[in-house]
Amino acid sequence: MIDIFSLKVEEIALKIKNVQLTSVEVCEKYIEKINKFEKDLKAWVYFDEKLLLEKAAEADEYRQSGKPIGPLHGIPIAIKDIVGTVDMPTECGTVIKKEKSFSQNAEIIDLLLAAGAIVMGKTATAEFAYLGPPKTTNPHDHSRTPGGSSSGSAAAVASFMAPLSIGSQTGGSVIRPASYCGVVGYKPTYGLISRNGVLKTSEKLDHIGMFGKTVEDVALLAKVLIKKDKFDSATVDYSADGLLEETKKGPLFEPKFIFYKTDYWKNVEKKSREAFEYFVKSFKNNIEIFDAPSYFKDIHKYHQIIYETDLANNFGLYYKKYKKELSKPMQDAIVNGNNHSAKDYAKAIDFMKTSYEFHEEVFKEYHGVLSPSSPGVAPKSLKSTGSAEFNRVWSYLGTPCISLPLLKGESEMPLGVQLIGAKFNDHKFLGLANWLEKKANN
Amino acid sequence: MIDIFSLKVEEIALKIKNVQLTSVEVCEKYIEKINKFEKDLKAWVYFDEKLLLEKAAEADEYRQSGKPIGPLHGIPIAIKDIVGTVDMPTECGTVIKKEKSFSQNAEIIDLLLAAGAIVMGKTATAEFAYLGPPKTTNPHDHSRTPGGSSSGSAAAVASFMAPLSIGSQTGGSVIRPASYCGVVGYKPTYGLISRNGVLKTSEKLDHIGMFGKTVEDVALLAKVLIKKDKFDSATVDYSADGLLEETKKGPLFEPKFIFYKTDYWKNVEKKSREAFEYFVKSFKNNIEIFDAPSYFKDIHKYHQIIYETDLANNFGLYYKKYKKELSKPMQDAIVNGNNHSAKDYAKAIDFMKTSYEFHEEVFKEYHGVLSPSSPGVAPKSLKSTGSAEFNRVWSYLGTPCISLPLLKGESEMPLGVQLIGAKFNDHKFLGLANWLEKKANN
Repeated sequence: MIDIFSLKVEEIALKIKNVQLTSVEVCEKYIEKINKFEKDLKAWVYFDEKLLLEKAAEADEYRQSGKPIGPLHGIPIAIKDIVGTVDMPTECGTVIKKEKSFSQNAEIIDLLLAAGAIVMGKTATAEFAYLGPPKTTNPHDHSRTPGGSSSGSAAAVASFMAPLSIGSQTGGSVIRPASYCGVVGYKPTYGLISRNGVLKTSEKLDHIGMFGKTVEDVALLAKVLIKKDKFDSATVDYSADGLLEETKKGPLFEPKFIFYKTDYWKNVEKKSREAFEYFVKSFKNNIEIFDAPSYFKDIHKYHQIIYETDLANNFGLYYKKYKKELSKPMQDAIVNGNNHSAKDYAKAIDFMKTSYEFHEEVFKEYHGVLSPSSPGVAPKSLKSTGSAEFNRVWSYLGTPCISLPLLKGESEMPLGVQLIGAKFNDHKFLGLANWLEKKANN
Repeated sequence: MIDIFSLKVEEIALKIKNVQLTSVEVCEKYIEKINKFEKDLKAWVYFDEKLLLEKAAEADEYRQSGKPIGPLHGIPIAIKDIVGTVDMPTECGTVIKKEKSFSQNAEIIDLLLAAGAIVMGKTATAEFAYLGPPKTTNPHDHSRTPGGSSSGSAAAVASFMAPLSIGSQTGGSVIRPASYCGVVGYKPTYGLISRNGVLKTSEKLDHIGMFGKTVEDVALLAKVLIKKDKFDSATVDYSADGLLEETKKGPLFEPKFIFYKTDYWKNVEKKSREAFEYFVKSFKNNIEIFDAPSYFKDIHKYHQIIYETDLANNFGLYYKKYKKELSKPMQDAIVNGNNHSAKDYAKAIDFMKTSYEFHEEVFKEYHGVLSPSSPGVAPKSLKSTGSAEFNRVWSYLGTPCISLPLLKGESEMPLGVQLIGAKFNDHKFLGLANWLEKKANN
């Protein structure tokens, strides 16, 4: 009997291809976990066991036809409930009924289907992918938040209810839940993955991201999703060819990392700080420690101005018509967004490129930046999704970042190590992440 | 005796290279014109005959050394007085004393010098390259504006006081004065030429542009100026190799143009309208006429929001300290800029990419868009620099545009034909402009 939970997704896909496993068998394994854990985890907002098994049976039938199959053929994938799907509702974490805009497949859903993947169901998201938490709990401790806003997507992968999932990040919505749930969370460079058909919260800050058990798993998924789309004008031509191969190969030279002690470092809880310090020490030949650049402070401010203003533009009508149905943080953000000045927004936009140019110099000297993925382990509450203070800067700059589940903090809860790299260099970046994952686990 | 005024700049440069002409002889010809016309034209704010001749003599001496020389060796070029120069003051069209920021050579000055060009002097600009007019008059009628804000640069080339000049455009500051003065004015795609060391009025809208007598002349100059600069983060890698050759070669197929009848068309004065209609008729196999896309209206509004906000950010301190020294239009713009909301600015920024994507579809069907360069000939006044209503859209979209001196309007004053092309396609674009110039002059 094959233990699929010990396999990489690429291996599962290969076994499906070679008829050693069927997609139905694979899906049944995940359904077992769902039946076991979902009652406590509340990771799914839409899941239909029957529909999934039908799709899996279709995939198996197609495979038997002998036609060429895609790299994710028969693999079920969980989708954050802000991504439009034609055969499942899209609720975006709110009770407010939205127009038909998300009743079509998002571009990334079509890319998944073209690769043979199966849309498994929709996972719980914070309200409009912002801060209002869903009911989802942390797989390691049900009294703790799984993080957000991609709460269900992180929890589903952590609890083996799905091999892979799609999330999104505007502040820290991929890296933070990955850290809290103890899975790999990857947000590629801004502009690599289309957001067409996905809830728009901020044109300049919204990224598609993903969760998996290993760096190789997310690389396989990213390869399928990275594609220029004329309906998302932020997307660029970036070939994903060889992404998985480069990931496996890793860096040619011994890598050099930088760790910034930001002002937020002192907020990190003691156990987590010790764990990260121990990690830095164990890589002492590879990691240099510096104070964070002074402009990081401005970036936190600018990120907030852009995010709140864009929320006010994109959700202003809801605020007018359904104010009471919105969470307090969402209401506050929209009120703030209504009051920001064009002058401040202009500065925030102009500084995006300038500050990245500063930072590009760092990436000439160092292969990557390291930091904790979150200021400690998952907080003991379901009322908040935790803090994005270690993630905002990188969402603003649009750099690739990944959270690796390498550490344990307070109460043996997982804590992620965040790796950040230069933009439009995701091949080498994932290779570096893979190196770090292997090295740290040895 | 060689008549340099009948030669293309490339030919003058070749004669200097081949010792058929010296740079001193060339400069003396332009100095003659300056001594004759400048009293009425007031195109220069800094011009030192002795300094120019010294530089020319140096260029001649260098040439005699036998060392390799650049494509503009010994050619004098007039510079808009918002471009920083180490050996000449930079006043930006205002009496307000600025910091030392423009006492260094701008990146484009260094590129000119590296190509062997000689910085001739500084030409009059509207106040801070906005609307407050300088004293410059129109070479064809001293009671009329030369247009602005690159007033002196256009007038100097029109009156043979310089073979080439540098200007800039944020609204219509290259195309409009080119139209009014009867010269070629070219604004390349946004991001091709560095603005480092040039007065910044709007990060998103500021472009470097240039003036010459022919399309080939500006192509030669553009080739020298187009270069990615890490100190202007808007610049991109775009090779200018073969730019002049492609310009000369022209289009491979019979080109197809589109002419939009915008809402502004009815504002065009009768004689100019007739001239343009006659032009369209004479190219009837090449030009199709359509109404302008409805979103052009939004673009005019968005252009204003971005421009005024950025002026408020960049000149807010002057407004506080020297309000009385600022023109009324500048004061108004800053007051408006202080009052725009972040929400409107965000929409204006987001629509830049989206609206260009719309427009890119047009450039798949048509090689270029044509329109008058200005709503008629130069107005009979020195109190205003005229209207940028035919130019703003293209500054906002960042497309290449060029004004060709092909028509005559009221009182036989010149009127430009504006050609607009797809972004990052300036090679083909200039080839098209060259084709149009030749065809119309036959």
